[in-house]
Amino acid sequence: MTIQLTGYSISAYCLALLQVLKELGLSYEFIQPNNFEDIKTPEYLATKHPFGKIPSLNDDGFQIYETRAIAHYLVKKYQGTKSSTVLIPSDVQKAALVEQFISVEISYYTQPLGKLVGQLVFAKRRGNEPDLKIVNEAREELEKVLDVYEKLLEGKDYLTGEFSLADLLHIPLTNYAIKAGEKDLWDKRPNVSRWWKNISERESWKNVLNEYTLA
Amino acid sequence: MTIQLTGYSISAYCLALLQVLKELGLSYEFIQPNNFEDIKTPEYLATKHPFGKIPSLNDDGFQIYETRAIAHYLVKKYQGTKSSTVLIPSDVQKAALVEQFISVEISYYTQPLGKLVGQLVFAKRRGNEPDLKIVNEAREELEKVLDVYEKLLEGKDYLTGEFSLADLLHIPLTNYAIKAGEKDLWDKRPNVSRWWKNISERESWKNVLNEYTLA
Ligand SMILES: N[C@@H](CCC(=O)N[C@@H](CS)C(=O)NCC(=O)O)C(=O)O
Ligand SMILES: N[C@@H](CCC(=O)N[C@@H](CS)C(=O)NCC(=O)O)C(=O)O
Repeated sequence: MTIQLTGYSISAYCLALLQVLKELGLSYEFIQPNNFEDIKTPEYLATKHPFGKIPSLNDDGFQIYETRAIAHYLVKKYQGTKSSTVLIPSDVQKAALVEQFISVEISYYTQPLGKLVGQLVFAKRRGNEPDLKIVNEAREELEKVLDVYEKLLEGKDYLTGEFSLADLLHIPLTNYAIKAGEKDLWDKRPNVSRWWKNISERESWKNVLNEYTLA
Repeated sequence: MTIQLTGYSISAYCLALLQVLKELGLSYEFIQPNNFEDIKTPEYLATKHPFGKIPSLNDDGFQIYETRAIAHYLVKKYQGTKSSTVLIPSDVQKAALVEQFISVEISYYTQPLGKLVGQLVFAKRRGNEPDLKIVNEAREELEKVLDVYEKLLEGKDYLTGEFSLADLLHIPLTNYAIKAGEKDLWDKRPNVSRWWKNISERESWKNVLNEYTLA
């Protein structure tokens, strides 16, 4: 069995999958293409990702792309075999709530947060000044979303009550925003702040941070 | 057992879920709030959808929101019990490919298509002229995406080979675009055009069209 993940360690998507692999106790190879041109070659498009993106995963010949699809595949195939972590419970209603919060993450949380991190981390990395209009709009939007999270997390340590794939998928981008100086957004909300502490202190995430170079 | 779906029949998200319910052979109640204010009341936010959106589903007391989470829940709970349709296969690799194409739909297909339909159908509905700059950019983007679909659908009747939830989720917005006069985008690509014929001629979709008022 060989699991090969193709992508970049600065990508929030890849960081999430690296953490999934660690949570599930799987060994893997991480392949980082030299540059963005390498993910647009006819060969890459034909064998790794037809839209020219990362991440892409190969498991003993089985090829799959798109972050959340890869995560679901790894969970369905390997959960419980090498570690005791449960990222998606088998109970139908509990699993449904994990899917619900994964959709919440994509639909409401990551949209403004991605813009914020895009400016504060990735634009800077490319040598550009952050666009303060975008930063402020993203912060405003995020304030509203985090107000809802504050209610959702009332009396709960994790989004569904127990740690799951839904929590995990929030970690990498939030980590970037907090490292870029936006910690107040999470800190000033007691439930959100407790949740962030719970999820960011997972051993698997600390291992990802130790092992890989972030942006 | 009572399944209650809350939403609007003009919403592409709700249309997809109505079709899922029909494919699975489930009976349900469809509740259409009077207006958008009704989905922002404290009660709606507390009991139906904390972000004030539709759709939301209640199954005998179990409450769940977000379209794709609802679809997954219905499939996991009811697939095979009232009809023989398989929307997500049990085989791990086949299921992974369904998830992959659901992510492709959200990430690449629906983004430009949503903009196109937003202008050609929904802006018009509100009495506004469509913004031709947005229309043209969306069309250009969609051309590129459909070129990739044309390759992905080579020799296949459906995205994964067999009809699945991934195909189904493409139907409502595509239907809107085609009804708005954009059929050429699908027609000029033989594989894409064959695929559209296969999925749009499903009995379940015809029943949705007969039963509900679209935009
Ligand atoms: N929907 C994809 C998104 C992947 C994605 O956008 N990846 C970025 C890097 S984080 C990428 O490959 N960008 C290169 C490009 O678009 O050229 C997923 O969920 O995996
Ligand atoms: N991520 C949600 C999106 C739902 C959504 O955006 N629904 C629209 C109607 S199609 C809505 O409720 N709009 C009302 C509003 O935003 O005020 C899902 O997948 O269900």
